[in-house]
Amino acid sequence: MNDATKPFLESAPDGEVGIVRHQDFICDEEFTFEMGVSIPAFQLRYETYGKLNEDHSNTILICHALSGDHHCAGVYSLNDRKPGWWNQMIGPGKPIDTNRFFVICSNCLGGCQGSTGPSSLDPRSGQPYRLSFPLPTIRDMVKAQSKLMDHLGIEKIACVIGGSMGGMQALQWAIDFPNRVASIIALATTPRQNAQAIAFNAVGRTAILQDPGWKEGAYDEGQGPNVGLSVARMMAHITYLSDEGLEEKFGRSRKLPKPEQTLEEMEFEVESYLKYQGRTFVNRFDPITYIYFTKSLDLFDLYGELGNLEDAFSSLTARVLVVGFTSDWLFPPEQNRRVAAALLRAGKNASYAEVDMKFGHDSFLIDSPELSLFIRNFLLDQ
Amino acid sequence: MNDATKPFLESAPDGEVGIVRHQDFICDEEFTFEMGVSIPAFQLRYETYGKLNEDHSNTILICHALSGDHHCAGVYSLNDRKPGWWNQMIGPGKPIDTNRFFVICSNCLGGCQGSTGPSSLDPRSGQPYRLSFPLPTIRDMVKAQSKLMDHLGIEKIACVIGGSMGGMQALQWAIDFPNRVASIIALATTPRQNAQAIAFNAVGRTAILQDPGWKEGAYDEGQGPNVGLSVARMMAHITYLSDEGLEEKFGRSRKLPKPEQTLEEMEFEVESYLKYQGRTFVNRFDPITYIYFTKSLDLFDLYGELGNLEDAFSSLTARVLVVGFTSDWLFPPEQNRRVAAALLRAGKNASYAEVDMKFGHDSFLIDSPELSLFIRNFLLDQ
Repeated sequence: MNDATKPFLESAPDGEVGIVRHQDFICDEEFTFEMGVSIPAFQLRYETYGKLNEDHSNTILICHALSGDHHCAGVYSLNDRKPGWWNQMIGPGKPIDTNRFFVICSNCLGGCQGSTGPSSLDPRSGQPYRLSFPLPTIRDMVKAQSKLMDHLGIEKIACVIGGSMGGMQALQWAIDFPNRVASIIALATTPRQNAQAIAFNAVGRTAILQDPGWKEGAYDEGQGPNVGLSVARMMAHITYLSDEGLEEKFGRSRKLPKPEQTLEEMEFEVESYLKYQGRTFVNRFDPITYIYFTKSLDLFDLYGELGNLEDAFSSLTARVLVVGFTSDWLFPPEQNRRVAAALLRAGKNASYAEVDMKFGHDSFLIDSPELSLFIRNFLLDQ
Repeated sequence: MNDATKPFLESAPDGEVGIVRHQDFICDEEFTFEMGVSIPAFQLRYETYGKLNEDHSNTILICHALSGDHHCAGVYSLNDRKPGWWNQMIGPGKPIDTNRFFVICSNCLGGCQGSTGPSSLDPRSGQPYRLSFPLPTIRDMVKAQSKLMDHLGIEKIACVIGGSMGGMQALQWAIDFPNRVASIIALATTPRQNAQAIAFNAVGRTAILQDPGWKEGAYDEGQGPNVGLSVARMMAHITYLSDEGLEEKFGRSRKLPKPEQTLEEMEFEVESYLKYQGRTFVNRFDPITYIYFTKSLDLFDLYGELGNLEDAFSSLTARVLVVGFTSDWLFPPEQNRRVAAALLRAGKNASYAEVDMKFGHDSFLIDSPELSLFIRNFLLDQ
């Protein structure tokens, strides 16, 4: 067994993954992107939970969404109060059961959480890549992950699971590597975005690209297009939630006009919350990665030039579960249903589940007994 | 008859209002805003179409939406290819028939299209008001319009009509001046915005307030927070349309990733369209008016402190038509229905019509035989 597959578990409480550490995989081969440009090498930062079995057949690959990262379960220390982003789903006895499965999650190629991306140094120049880093498509992200699988000696993946941009990656895995993927679960996903979703991404990019701090991508470290990036995040955040979810969480916090109030005193709670979201995002995310990943989403199009979704799935052999969420208006249930319907028309082993949750697009990130049961039961057959 | 009520019509083609000119009403009395602050005088820019009848009983007041203005019908010259924003609705023989009615539309107090607002000179200082201009509530806008009605010798208005922010004004007119309003038509409106609508407005304001060009409101003329304002407009524009409308107008304009394309070459049509919308908006709109009007929308709350919508309507005597639009997700049909239902519960003469149009919140601005018929028939009884 490859050393890299040893999990870093210490003193895990019952039913929890416990303390984890990330690892870095360095691929020293040249990597050519779908757009035709190459980089000499790349790194993927990843975490693993559970143990790889003898015949290397129990791997589950988790693919993260646009602003996610490789840290999807466990904590970094005993004092760490914020576990990985899917901690309720992954662990001993949990729906993605680390007693059975060896779970891997890597930061996407082009990302900014430890994997090679626009903010990484280009070894050829010694300077950060910035805009000279090629735009990674969903297919490129998947191809880079396949190199990590090679490195770990994993020929076949039991299940690739992801939501939103992660769902696109799961679908792309099953399409590009039909012999390496036994099953996939694609949550809150779409075969291609509608004009409204593209429009929101376009506004976010414009906010960044028109920020005076942008300087055509040649901004000083920490002095970048922070306003544009935080505005983009604030707006996107609204699209990840639902009207009902927002209403329940914030409502109007009942503010009525009072004489002589300042604009700030008249602020609703939802306003302060979004501003906080925008501010904190700037500290952890690279503006070029944001521009690129939103563009990767916009360009993802399984309908292809002929506009035929079944064609995209012709070589696919994996068992597929597609999960849509009733309150998701960014990648609405209908778009998820279309994926499952096209798979069925193409004679594939596919099913569709719709989960009635009120948290919008982000519902897949929220603890739900029904969603947990769907995932647990689908994996029982794996 | 007051001179100001003479319409400026020249060579109007059959069924058209024809060439119009704006007029300015100057109110030299001190005006105290709901928030408690006063200004020494104000001006409202307005247009009129049709003729005021002998007993001054045939006035229709049109209230515009956030980014609208007083120019709702006719053209400014024979070469003017863009008539007023509701030209299909207003004119001889049209649903709002200028053969019968004397139609008035004024730019809102606090606006930037000729009425006194933040970009106007404060006569006390000789400098633009900017942030020293008080925040106008919907009630203030209506109160300023009532001074214009006084000036024109119009004691009672046959019908106040408006969509979106204009719908709020129509409701406020009927509430604040029950003896002066015979009927109202409120389109695509809401008794108060939900958290999602407030959130979008908040992001737009943040984009402006965090723009380095903002300078706490002390920006140089033409050098203001242009990026922030254009981004705010781009985002808001998405919320005025519908997914279906955008999809039909732009779809994806089918762009697939091609090697060696630049980010701009990969732009979808909806992206270029929104950027154009943002750029042109900056040339015609004041950033402080934008901040104020979005705040006016956010603060509008007919539920009041007791959370009882019927209470707001207790003194109302006007006949009311509320019109919701199926594809409007900013002020959804449900919110319009609630207004009509509360009026009926309060024993008022109210009806609700829902128009099946796919253009989102902006549907009320689009030509529709059904909407035209509803308005025409409602006005027959006036």
